[in-house]
This record gives sequence, structure tokens and C-alpha cells, in this order.
Amino acid sequence: MPMFKMVEYNKAKPEIRAVYDDIMATRKTDWVNNFWKTLATQPGLLRRVWANAKEVMAPGKIDALTKEMIYVAVSITNGCDYCIHSHIAAAKSKGMTEEMFGELISVIGLANQTNSLADGFKIPVDDQFETAF
Amino acid sequence: MPMFKMVEYNKAKPEIRAVYDDIMATRKTDWVNNFWKTLATQPGLLRRVWANAKEVMAPGKIDALTKEMIYVAVSITNGCDYCIHSHIAAAKSKGMTEEMFGELISVIGLANQTNSLADGFKIPVDDQFETAF
Amino acid sequence: MPMFKMVEYNKAKPEIRAVYDDIMATRKTDWVNNFWKTLATQPGLLRRVWANAKEVMAPGKIDALTKEMIYVAVSITNGCDYCIHSHIAAAKSKGMTEEMFGELISVIGLANQTNSLADGFKIPVDDQFETAF
Amino acid sequence: MPMFKMVEYNKAKPEIRAVYDDIMATRKTDWVNNFWKTLATQPGLLRRVWANAKEVMAPGKIDALTKEMIYVAVSITNGCDYCIHSHIAAAKSKGMTEEMFGELISVIGLANQTNSLADGFKIPVDDQFETAF
Amino acid sequence: MPMFKMVEYNKAKPEIRAVYDDIMATRKTDWVNNFWKTLATQPGLLRRVWANAKEVMAPGKIDALTKEMIYVAVSITNGCDYCIHSHIAAAKSKGMTEEMFGELISVIGLANQTNSLADGFKIPVDDQFETAF
Amino acid sequence: MPMFKMVEYNKAKPEIRAVYDDIMATRKTDWVNNFWKTLATQPGLLRRVWANAKEVMAPGKIDALTKEMIYVAVSITNGCDYCIHSHIAAAKSKGMTEEMFGELISVIGLANQTNSLADGFKIPVDDQFETAF
Repeated sequence: MPMFKMVEYNKAKPEIRAVYDDIMATRKTDWVNNFWKTLATQPGLLRRVWANAKEVMAPGKIDALTKEMIYVAVSITNGCDYCIHSHIAAAKSKGMTEEMFGELISVIGLANQTNSLADGFKIPVDDQFETAF
Repeated sequence: MPMFKMVEYNKAKPEIRAVYDDIMATRKTDWVNNFWKTLATQPGLLRRVWANAKEVMAPGKIDALTKEMIYVAVSITNGCDYCIHSHIAAAKSKGMTEEMFGELISVIGLANQTNSLADGFKIPVDDQFETAF
Repeated sequence: MPMFKMVEYNKAKPEIRAVYDDIMATRKTDWVNNFWKTLATQPGLLRRVWANAKEVMAPGKIDALTKEMIYVAVSITNGCDYCIHSHIAAAKSKGMTEEMFGELISVIGLANQTNSLADGFKIPVDDQFETAF
Repeated sequence: MPMFKMVEYNKAKPEIRAVYDDIMATRKTDWVNNFWKTLATQPGLLRRVWANAKEVMAPGKIDALTKEMIYVAVSITNGCDYCIHSHIAAAKSKGMTEEMFGELISVIGLANQTNSLADGFKIPVDDQFETAF
Repeated sequence: MPMFKMVEYNKAKPEIRAVYDDIMATRKTDWVNNFWKTLATQPGLLRRVWANAKEVMAPGKIDALTKEMIYVAVSITNGCDYCIHSHIAAAKSKGMTEEMFGELISVIGLANQTNSLADGFKIPVDDQFETAF
Repeated sequence: MPMFKMVEYNKAKPEIRAVYDDIMATRKTDWVNNFWKTLATQPGLLRRVWANAKEVMAPGKIDALTKEMIYVAVSITNGCDYCIHSHIAAAKSKGMTEEMFGELISVIGLANQTNSLADGFKIPVDDQFETAF
């Protein structure tokens, strides 16, 4: 049983409903997932997080599918079950095939392995890597 | 002072030198970074990790730059200082601009934020996300 | 199915029962939660952890509710499901309202976001922050 | 050497300068710390993160000092060096004494310990904790 | 419902079946667990990870049981539910008693506690610890 | 500069000095490391953590060297720099050779890799692993 009740569209106040409408319009879907319906119990939080997500996840110099795969990488590293489910689904809807997922998770696994090796061996940063943009 | 001595090319045994040569040939560089020179204190570990890294990081269904950005995402989430430095440098060498890094880290920041929100609110996974490949 | 059997009050040895009695007396409740009943399979661990928890969580310069909210912040950051449930419940019993939880989780989300930004940008510590108590 | 150049006030564009002015006015200080001066290399990120931080960290149902202590708890759990320094400093400026910090870090240490115990013993959530707000 | 179908032995291609046979022969069991049956959806990943695991987990200067307990320590610290289950089971099959598990998890809990204390107090490394192998 | 002053032996109050004496007697050394000298700023914390560490790290069903290696595994996984240094040093003093460290870190690296694979693939726990002690 979830400890937090969700706010359904037909019972939502106008300010919540406006966010839901924007979510569905932006994503071209006809439903709102549990993440947003739970955040809606805290209207300010819903408003802030959605405004950020809408801006950050929009295609820019990095395309939308790549952004979703980056999201999956963070979520798997943190072990966030809900986020793994929802962002794999989002990446699939944007074109990620099973073969691509296989490569994605291979990189994630390798990175988690070598991160621990670098920390454990306390490897000093090479001068060549100390370059600024 | 690093606690682990590094194995320099000119003092390396043939099996180590062969790995170093392969690293430089694969990356089209003329130097080997501290990560590999430290792992070389454990020849089996060097061999295994390089064999994996070479295969996993090669361009496939996901291109090499995207793979480096995924690596950066994991490394930042884990807070691995050496890996953040080395993989940002690698991504830059493959074409990541400062503007792209700005988008990359924005996604990483958002994902770390929403991961904690999803865990904290204990949000149940939507049925729509329970689809198999 | 839990992999570890729990020790119920009526089957507990005197030394375990004494800890259970102290837990209930300290918390003014008439039941012991699964965390302690599981730790009781290792009497030394039960004794040490309870002694620490009793001392650390007692109101001092920081009040008991604030301490529970700090506990929730750590538990959400670590993604510990049991701890999130139990310490949100504890915080509620000490007066945390849903609105307060909304503010608490907003801070937690922001901190997890900016932690990754600070790590990723490798921001040097300002001299002004290098002050001792 | 930081890999990312910082944007100093006197070289900042008007939109950046406006954020800096707001930061100093909100905090009643006459300087801007490295975190914001680094984020300013990405104007959109600076704008979004500051807008959120200003709103989230303002006193509400939870006071400003408690919010800073919660921030410290997350930052220590994540091991974010910059954030630990900056938010301990912020908490001190809002009234956290060394004795309070001692209690704060005691709770953080206990929570990190018991989080791992609860995960390791795979303790089932008590029915009593499954209550909604 | 798992999002990833598993590859059963009787439907596996020869290259997958060869890995399964090697897993069962190495472990002296007559079944393959879900981890490998899921990785088998990505044959290259299955091959690489198994080759590494076989080599790394074999008894060497550290015995097989100790290696499993180290695996459990990492898995609990990361909160990886599947890995906690599977490696506690593996350690039990290699001789870990409940009393040994009690000591193991006590060390894990203590280490997670003191890790956060050392990070939070930002304790400088003693010169005496800066020795090389 | 450390933000927390350390309490030196010759300026310590009797209750602190007693703990220092016990640390040195237990470890058969003639100095106290920075961890304890920093915790000593909070006498209750020093007392509690040392009492636990003394009991937990004493040889029992698991020997003292193995316990130190488990400590290293947790510390590397958490990326705690101080703890990595101090517990590698402690393990070396108890007999860990460089070759053993090579095996230890290989297991840690593998475990961090497969933890992320298991989380990412959301692998269901096998019935065979659901056995109680």
C-alpha cells in the first residue's frame, strides 16, 4: 500500500490539472503516471519539478533518447526501482531497442566496476586530464 | 602520495606492454593513463578490465561519444573523482562541447533529484511501465 | 519470505526480553517492530545498536522530531525501503505533518541534485567555508 | 585546477548578474560562492537551480536551520565534499553549535549503520508502518 | 513481472548453452540462476561477465568463502536486493553460519557508520597511512 | 585545513585519555589516529563508536584480517577516502599482501558491476535463494 495518496485528474484543483495537461501535451500521451500524481500532494513541488523536467529533458544539443538513456544510467546506479521502470519505458518509447539497452547496461556495469577500482587504488588524476573547457 | 606504485611502459613485462600497446592503438594516443598503469600491478585485473572496456566502449548500436557521456553520468552519481576527470576528458576528445556537458549534467542532476523523490514517496510502479522488450 | 526468522517476545531469552522492555518503555508503545526482532537473532548486535539508538535519538540540543527527519533524509538518500517506512512513521508520531514532509523531501531532492552538480563540476571549496568551529 | 572556469560578477552578463544580486540579497551577504559562479557557465542551469533553492530553502513549516541540517545529512551520506563544507558553514551561520553538529552527525552515522542492517537482513515492513497521511 | 524475459536452457543457442554448462560444472549444481538466464538475452554480456566472475571468484590467495562474504558486503552497502539474496545463499553453501553472518553484518554496519563520520568530519589522512605496498 | 580541531593526548580530559589508552592497548600501538582524535571533540560519540568498534572488530567466528578486508570493501564502495587509507593500512598490518589486495579489489569491482546489472535488469529472486538460516 502506498503511504501517499495520489491526486487523480478528475479530483485535481485547477493548478494541478494545468500541470497534468501540460505533461500530457508535452509527451503526447493521454495519461499521467504515478510519479506526478504523487508529487501533486505537494503542489509547489509538482510545479517546480515538472518545470525543470520539461526544460531539461527537451531535445537540445543532446537528443531526447540519449537524455533518457543518461537518466536510466543514473537510476540504475542509484538502484531506484520506480525510476528504472519508468525511464526504460520512456527510452523504449523514444526508440531504444533491446540491443541498445544491452549496450547501455554494459557501459553502466563497467563504469560502476571501474569507479570502485579507481577509488580503491586511489589513482592520482593525470595532468593530461586537467584541462578546462 | 599514491599508495600504489605504477608500472611504467619501459619497465613493464611483455604481457603488460602488449596491453599498453593495444590501449594506445585502440585510442590512437601515445600515452597510457594512470588507471591502467596502476591496474598493471595486478596483471590479471589489467587484462580482464581492458578486454571488457575495449569491447564495451567500442561503437555499436550506441555511438562512442554517447557511451562516454553515460560513463560520466555513472561516475558523477558515484562521486568518483578520477573517473569524472578521465571520462569528461574522453568525452571532450570525442566531441562533447561545453554546452553539451551543460545538458548532460542537467539531466544527471534532475535524475538524482527525482530518484530520491521516487524512493521517498515510495511510488508504486504504473502498470503501463511493466512491459517486456 | 524473510530470510531471517524473528525472535518474538514470548520466546525471547531474558537478555533479549530486557531490551524489548526497554524499547517499549522508552517509546511508550506496547509492541516491538521487526527491525529489533530480527537483530535479536544476534544478541550482541541487538544490545549494541539499541544502546546507541537510545542515546543518539534522545532529545538533546536537537529535538526528537528533527532527529527523525534527519534519519528520514539519510534513509531516502540511501534508498533503504524499511528505514523510509519506519522513520516516516516515527516522525509522524512525533508531529510531522504532510506539509512538513513535503518540505523535508523537497530539501532532500534539492540536496541530491546539487550534490551531483558539485561533484560533476568539481567545484573548489571557497576559502570562506574553511573555518573551524 | 578546476576544470570549469567561473563567471565573476564584474564579467557577468546582466541575466547572470541579476541572479547573483538575488543570491546576495536573499542571503544578506556581499559575495557569491563558487557553486553559483560555476553554474553560471550554463545560464539556464543557474537560473533553474537558484529558483528552486531559493524557494525550497526558505523557512516554511520547517525552519531554515533545520533545513540546512537536513542538507548536511544528505551531503555527508553522499560524501559530497564541496556540499559538506558549504552547508556546514551555512548551518553554522544560522546557529548550529559544535554540540548540535555532534548530535547531527551521530544521527547520520546511526542511520547509515541501520540502513545497511535493514537492507542486509531484508527486514519486512511492519503492518503498523503502512499508514497513509 | 520481470521486464526482461529469461533464456531457458532448452531454448538456448549453443553458445549460451556452453556458458550454462560451464556455470553448472564450476559450481557443481544442476541449475542456473535468474541472473545468468537474464544476461543471456545479451550474449556478449553473458560471456564477458561469466568469464570474469569465474576467474575472480575462484579460490586464490583469498578463499572462496571469504570472497563471497566480501561480495555480500558490497551488495548490502549498495542495497542490491537480488545480490544480497544470491550471495548470502552462496556464502551459506560455502560454510557461512548464522553466527558468522552476524559478525559479517556487524562489520558492514560499523563501516557504513564510520564512513559517514569520516566524510562528515572531513578527517585528514594520517601520514602513517600513506605507505605504499 | 580540517574544519574540526583534534584533541591531542596531552590536552585530553581523563575520560578521553582513557579511551585513547584503550585504543593503543587493544591495537598494541603507541599512537592514536586522526579519526579518534576528531571524534574526541564529541566525547559521547567517541565513547560509543570505540566501544562498538572494539567489540565488532575483535576476532570471533571471522578472523581479524578478514574483518578488515570486509571494512575495505564497504569503504571502497562508499568512496570514503579516509577509510580506504586507514583500513588498507590496518589490513596490511594484519597480513594482507599486495596480491591479496589485488584479489580483494577484483571482487569489489565485480560486485559493484553485477549489482548494477541486477538492479538494471530487475532480476527476480530465485526461489532457491529464499531459504532461512
